[in-house]
Amino acid sequence: MKTVSTIQEVREIVKKWRQENCSIGFVPTMGYLHEGHESLMKAAKANHDKVVVSIFVNPMQFGKNEDLDTYPRDMEHDSAVCEAIGVDVIFHPSPSEMYGENFYTYVDMDYLTEGLCGKSRPVMFRGVCTVVSKLFNIVQPDKAYFGQKDAQQLAVITRMVKDLNFDLEIVGCPIVREEDGLAKSSRNSYLNADERKAALVLHHALTIAQNLIESGETNALLIKEKMIQEIKKEPLARIDYVEIVDWENIKAIEQIHKSALIALAVFIGKTRLIDNFIHIIK
Amino acid sequence: MKTVSTIQEVREIVKKWRQENCSIGFVPTMGYLHEGHESLMKAAKANHDKVVVSIFVNPMQFGKNEDLDTYPRDMEHDSAVCEAIGVDVIFHPSPSEMYGENFYTYVDMDYLTEGLCGKSRPVMFRGVCTVVSKLFNIVQPDKAYFGQKDAQQLAVITRMVKDLNFDLEIVGCPIVREEDGLAKSSRNSYLNADERKAALVLHHALTIAQNLIESGETNALLIKEKMIQEIKKEPLARIDYVEIVDWENIKAIEQIHKSALIALAVFIGKTRLIDNFIHIIK
Repeated sequence: MKTVSTIQEVREIVKKWRQENCSIGFVPTMGYLHEGHESLMKAAKANHDKVVVSIFVNPMQFGKNEDLDTYPRDMEHDSAVCEAIGVDVIFHPSPSEMYGENFYTYVDMDYLTEGLCGKSRPVMFRGVCTVVSKLFNIVQPDKAYFGQKDAQQLAVITRMVKDLNFDLEIVGCPIVREEDGLAKSSRNSYLNADERKAALVLHHALTIAQNLIESGETNALLIKEKMIQEIKKEPLARIDYVEIVDWENIKAIEQIHKSALIALAVFIGKTRLIDNFIHIIK
Repeated sequence: MKTVSTIQEVREIVKKWRQENCSIGFVPTMGYLHEGHESLMKAAKANHDKVVVSIFVNPMQFGKNEDLDTYPRDMEHDSAVCEAIGVDVIFHPSPSEMYGENFYTYVDMDYLTEGLCGKSRPVMFRGVCTVVSKLFNIVQPDKAYFGQKDAQQLAVITRMVKDLNFDLEIVGCPIVREEDGLAKSSRNSYLNADERKAALVLHHALTIAQNLIESGETNALLIKEKMIQEIKKEPLARIDYVEIVDWENIKAIEQIHKSALIALAVFIGKTRLIDNFIHIIK
């Protein structure tokens, strides 16, 4: 496994692989890798001759009062994880390598970004679309792997690839959870012992929704209300949003008659956590 | 020469060329080809194994009150021009092929787009950056050729390629002029005989600027004033802008001590024409 920090190095490696007709799988991450990331890397490893993982905490997707500076980083651990899975290249650039002086261009999206995390974090998707476009142009993979935990991001990136005609395929992979149900997240490391227990409320609220839907309930407002009631029982929790939206266009729905995304963002203490499930109707 | 209208067809042709290790030159146009376009196509032909020309009047870059509907089109003539130069593929998509339903993504740029044509035509560069990004992802050329007549566009596209790490090179080609000095433009076809004569005022104003600069004048405000005086002599002309800007960052300058773009946009009757020259200081 090779770890490289410059765009030029990645380009040279990728061009050589292309000449050898290798297929390339790509997993973009912000590092502090957990089993969620590992599942993406394993999927890429199973499907491609070569796997590239990028590790880059992208300044452009953090708002002014967000956790850019404190976002957890551990390259030693991340390298070991990638090595064990058989990743071929880690691309670990500096912010100045990715955003030189006089950086003016951005990629952004209307509509799909208006609700959920896009509403709470207005600059996030511009940052995500821009950095992912850059990474796609640098790595030029056949497929790129994203976790369903960031469901809106998955929808946005999938739409961006279609709209801008990137010559690659987006693969979404299921959420990986702790044994007690908490969705794996790099930000779980912010939680103290009490908060860690309180954080289960996200999974509990989603389980209530899932059970209601499976028992035939289609009234989205009623389901949301039950989820909100559950979260309000937890004193350390503060709701950012609880939403049920059409999985196609990420717009709020009142009745679940099509595939729906049930998503929530909840502050546990100072830590903002997200979770969701997608109810597919074929 | 092949003319194709779908993204899928272009992709298949390009993939085959890539397997044969062909280099690809690309000339994106809105059609109604003139000698300016021909110079780009000839440059591409001289430098590459294969040449793709796109002909697409891009709705996204026209403002609501601009000339999208009347923009001149002549595919028969354009095909003959491309055939004569030895173009390999014309990509001539429909608007619905390029912008399907639920098209939400855009590429845009701050700073470089704030003055000149970006000020007069606020949606233009978003449309240009978005469609050019799409075309780059579809054609995946080694080099793409743009005319210097659209100098700000050349600066914007060059910056976009750098910022977003497109794996290709932008080549800027000199302005091609009629014998009397009028810059070649598809929009010259809008001019009646009187307007055609009046349109020379753009070239005359630029010639005055060029002579002043060559004689050692560095005061940009004085040079602009002389250009404006010249244009005001022409009753059919109405100034949109006359600007002298730093060629690096497209910001207005008062003294010409670095490479400068001297650019103007003038309405001749209802037709908006642009022209410029770049004064290079090494």
